[in-house]
Amino acid sequence: MARRKKIYEGKAKILYEGPEPGTFVQYFKDDATAFNAEKRAVIDGKGVLNNRLSEFFMTGLAQIGVPTHFIRRLNMREQLVQQVEIIPLEIVVRNFAAGSLSTRLGLAEGTALPRPIVEFCLKDDKLGDPLVSEEHIMAFGWASQQDLDDMVALALRVNDFMSGVMLAVGIKLVDFKIEVGRVWDSEGEFQRLVVADEISPDSCRLWDIQTGQKLDKDVFRRDLGSLADAYTEVARRLGVLPSNVTHTTKPTLIN
Amino acid sequence: MARRKKIYEGKAKILYEGPEPGTFVQYFKDDATAFNAEKRAVIDGKGVLNNRLSEFFMTGLAQIGVPTHFIRRLNMREQLVQQVEIIPLEIVVRNFAAGSLSTRLGLAEGTALPRPIVEFCLKDDKLGDPLVSEEHIMAFGWASQQDLDDMVALALRVNDFMSGVMLAVGIKLVDFKIEVGRVWDSEGEFQRLVVADEISPDSCRLWDIQTGQKLDKDVFRRDLGSLADAYTEVARRLGVLPSNVTHTTKPTLIN
Ligand SMILES: Nc1ncnc2c1ncn2[C@@H]1O[C@H](COP(=O)(O)OP(=O)(O)O)[C@@H](O)[C@H]1O
Ligand SMILES: Nc1ncnc2c1ncn2[C@@H]1O[C@H](COP(=O)(O)OP(=O)(O)O)[C@@H](O)[C@H]1O
Ligand SMILES: [Mg+2]
Ligand SMILES: [Mg+2]
Repeated sequence: MARRKKIYEGKAKILYEGPEPGTFVQYFKDDATAFNAEKRAVIDGKGVLNNRLSEFFMTGLAQIGVPTHFIRRLNMREQLVQQVEIIPLEIVVRNFAAGSLSTRLGLAEGTALPRPIVEFCLKDDKLGDPLVSEEHIMAFGWASQQDLDDMVALALRVNDFMSGVMLAVGIKLVDFKIEVGRVWDSEGEFQRLVVADEISPDSCRLWDIQTGQKLDKDVFRRDLGSLADAYTEVARRLGVLPSNVTHTTKPTLIN
Repeated sequence: MARRKKIYEGKAKILYEGPEPGTFVQYFKDDATAFNAEKRAVIDGKGVLNNRLSEFFMTGLAQIGVPTHFIRRLNMREQLVQQVEIIPLEIVVRNFAAGSLSTRLGLAEGTALPRPIVEFCLKDDKLGDPLVSEEHIMAFGWASQQDLDDMVALALRVNDFMSGVMLAVGIKLVDFKIEVGRVWDSEGEFQRLVVADEISPDSCRLWDIQTGQKLDKDVFRRDLGSLADAYTEVARRLGVLPSNVTHTTKPTLIN
């Protein structure tokens, strides 16, 4: 693995060429960034936790028939994924107001939304991932109407599933972001969309139902304590850590 | 509550007239029946567990925007529900082969299905709840094409959510059954469909992911041990029992 080719290094992960054509190895770093990388830190163990948690969520999604890029976990920090053509949009699903939606529309954090709201942001760090409408997306060709319909349907299925996962362990899924990519058939004629990138406390807002305690990246963004402790708590509740004693003891058996 | 009117007594529950028009009180009995009530027993505490578990699932569904009849739990055995016009179909969603599907199609129990399969059975104990196709349903007027489309969509959303709930506590959702009812607007012109009846280990097949242990009514059907213990284990993992120590201690705070 020493001399493999680095494809891309991002803020939280590195992509390497995979062992087979059409695959990448996704390496999870301990780096945490916020506010478009203006705030940075290294959080010991974050990469290990996110690698495991993303495996857990993606495997569960695959089981209910939601396609994802995840193939298998390789080791503590790496997972094998299918290479996809990332659609340059962050797809955000919100159940309660928080973060930028609270700011932009003047809604108190935690306000229940009338229904889940799907937002698209252009994935462009230099521009600060600006909110875009379907009009922008189609006019600039980032995605077609069909892609948009498929992305909304995928995102809402992820929301139903992840809301269930979190409720079962006493956590409210406030919002989350996914990235979606295109996979082409061998002739390059047909495409389908799959959930790519990661699903982890880096990409969700997770509040303890009873105490309201934040168990996601806001702990880092807002200096609310130990980020590693928060992510460990999520992993522990879901039984994806060896220390979990309630229902899952061997993390190797998860999936 | 002593002299309220009994509307209907079924195998597992009793419906009473509710305190407000358009409501029923749904009382959960301890009676267990199987094979169309040929096998019967009283399982101490089952009604209490199913009342709580159905509350937990229906509340979670409402939070993601899946409409249900559930209004609120009244006490250990009773919940207030919206009166609906039950569509006389049992809607079954299957992720893995088991029970009648295994028998009818000769599939080993536990075989993963290519995708979730939605089945309809006519709710008629005398006939043994026979499987029916969409053709039968529309020909006999039990539901319209629109109803069917809406029921399938509802059932698949319930499956996504419940699969997430169960995965989070180390349980495989093999299959489940729901009942759906019509609610009319005040003029009786417009209807919408809501999930009614109950969602509980009586109406799901739940297998422990690691051991394969059954945690549902098959324990009773097949004499596999204590049904109350199995349902208690499900409730404990989901934190809906006082004895749960991992993340939820006060069951009254759930929802
Ligand atoms: N399966 C995949 N195929 C191709 N690119 C992917 C895949 N999954 C994720 N990516 C991309 O890889 C990068 C992951 O690293 P990350 O640190 O999140 O980068 P960034 O700082 O750009 O968000 C992201 O740019 C993401 O869009
Ligand atoms: N909200 C509701 N409004 C009207 N009927 C309902 C509602 N929820 C459930 N029911 C019906 O009430 C009965 C519940 O009792 P149960 O013991 O399950 O009966 P059964 O033996 O007929 O299955 C079922 O017949 C079910 O269809
Ligand atoms: Mg990223
Ligand atoms: Mg019944």
